[in-house]
Amino acid sequence: MSIDRDRLKRAAADRAVEFVESGMVLGLGTGSTAGFVIERLAARIAGGLRIVAIPTSEHTAELACRLGIPLTSFAEHRHIDLAIDGADEVERTRLDLIKGRGGALLREKIVAAASRRFIVVVDDEKLVDRLGEHTPIPVEVARFGWQATAAALERLGAEPVLRQSDGLPFVTDGGNLILDCRFAPIEDAQQTERLINMTVGVVENGLFAGRSSAVIVASESGIRIMTRQS
Amino acid sequence: MSIDRDRLKRAAADRAVEFVESGMVLGLGTGSTAGFVIERLAARIAGGLRIVAIPTSEHTAELACRLGIPLTSFAEHRHIDLAIDGADEVERTRLDLIKGRGGALLREKIVAAASRRFIVVVDDEKLVDRLGEHTPIPVEVARFGWQATAAALERLGAEPVLRQSDGLPFVTDGGNLILDCRFAPIEDAQQTERLINMTVGVVENGLFAGRSSAVIVASESGIRIMTRQS
Repeated sequence: MSIDRDRLKRAAADRAVEFVESGMVLGLGTGSTAGFVIERLAARIAGGLRIVAIPTSEHTAELACRLGIPLTSFAEHRHIDLAIDGADEVERTRLDLIKGRGGALLREKIVAAASRRFIVVVDDEKLVDRLGEHTPIPVEVARFGWQATAAALERLGAEPVLRQSDGLPFVTDGGNLILDCRFAPIEDAQQTERLINMTVGVVENGLFAGRSSAVIVASESGIRIMTRQS
Repeated sequence: MSIDRDRLKRAAADRAVEFVESGMVLGLGTGSTAGFVIERLAARIAGGLRIVAIPTSEHTAELACRLGIPLTSFAEHRHIDLAIDGADEVERTRLDLIKGRGGALLREKIVAAASRRFIVVVDDEKLVDRLGEHTPIPVEVARFGWQATAAALERLGAEPVLRQSDGLPFVTDGGNLILDCRFAPIEDAQQTERLINMTVGVVENGLFAGRSSAVIVASESGIRIMTRQS
C-alpha cells in the first residue's frame, strides 16, 4: 500500500518537474513527495538543466545538496519563479491546503508567498471536500507563553495539542513549537487562516488559502492537473 | 532634560504600582519605565506585598530577580491579573500604542493579551494624535527569508530597515529579527496591525490596538490617568 502511494507520489512529482525551465529560481518543499521532486530535479540537472533553488527546511537543504542541486537564498533572490511542494490535505474546488505535518510550514509559506507560481503535488488520498476532515491544522507558536497561546486558540474553537518528538516538545527550524489544532471541518479557510494568525503568540499556521496555482494529483487512473475554480 | 524625564516616568510608575494587590499574577514590561515599575514593586514587596510576576524579557527577568521579585511563568499561570508596561507612542483618544523599541514586543504582546488589565505608563512626550508620527513600527520577522518579508511589507507602504546592534542584525529573545517600518501616520491602527500580521514571515508587530485598559501619563503638571473613549 505504502509502496503504491510512493509510486503515485513519484509520478505526480515527475509531472511537476516538467514545469521547470532553465534559468528559474525554484522553491523546494519538504516531505516525502517533495523528496521525489528533488530526485527528479537532480536527474534533469545532470541532463543539463540550469536552475538555483531555495530549500524550505534544513532537511531539504541537505538532500538537495547531496544530489547536486545548486542552492541559493533570499539574500540573492527576493522572488521565486516556481515553488513545488506537497500537502497534507487539498480542498478540491478552491485548492486551499493544510500543510505542516513535516514541521516546515513557516518556511514553506514564506517560499509559497514569494513565488510567482506554486504547484502542489499529491496523491488522490489527500483530496477532501472540507479541510480539517482528517488532519489537524499545525500552528507554529512562540515558545514563550505557548500555554496562553493554546488557551487563546481554544477560544477560537480548536483543540490544541503540543507536538512531541521522542518525548520532548518538537522544535521547528525557526526555534518555535507546533500546536496541532483540531477544528471542526473548515468552511472558510481564508477567514480561519486570518483568525489564527491574529492570535497573539502565533507565528504562522498550516492553512494555505488561495496560494496554489495548480495541484497535480496522481491516482491509479493517471495524472490530473487541477487549477482553481474562482 | 533626561533626568527630568526619568523623574516623570518614575512618578507614573509609582502611581501604576498602586493598582497592584496581594495575590495578583503580574506581567512585567521591558524598558526604562518598566524598570521604575519593577523598583517600586520591589519596595512594596519588601513592605509585605505578595505577588508573582511573569517577565517580558530576559533583561526584565534578571532585574526582577536581583530585586527579589518572585517570578513565575505561563506553565503555572495561563492568565495574568494585571500587566504594566511602557510604550513608545500612545494615540491620545483610543489609547492604541506603538511598542517595541526595546525589542521585546512579542513577549510584551503575549503578556498583554493574556492579562485581564493592561496599564501603560508614559511621560507626556509619548502622546501623539496619530501613531507613527515619530516612531517607526517595529515588526518582528522570521530570519528565514526576511528579505522577502521586507519586500512584502514595502508593498503595504512601509519603508523597512533591518535593526542593527553593534554592526550586526539585532536578534530578539525569540531568535527573530526586527524590521523598523516607517509608515505614513496611521489612521486605523487595528487594520494596520492586522495587515502587517497577515504578511507571511511576520511573527508579530509593535502596534497594540485596543489593548490598553488605562494609560498613566506623567507631565510637569502632574499625573493623569486616561481611559479609552470607546
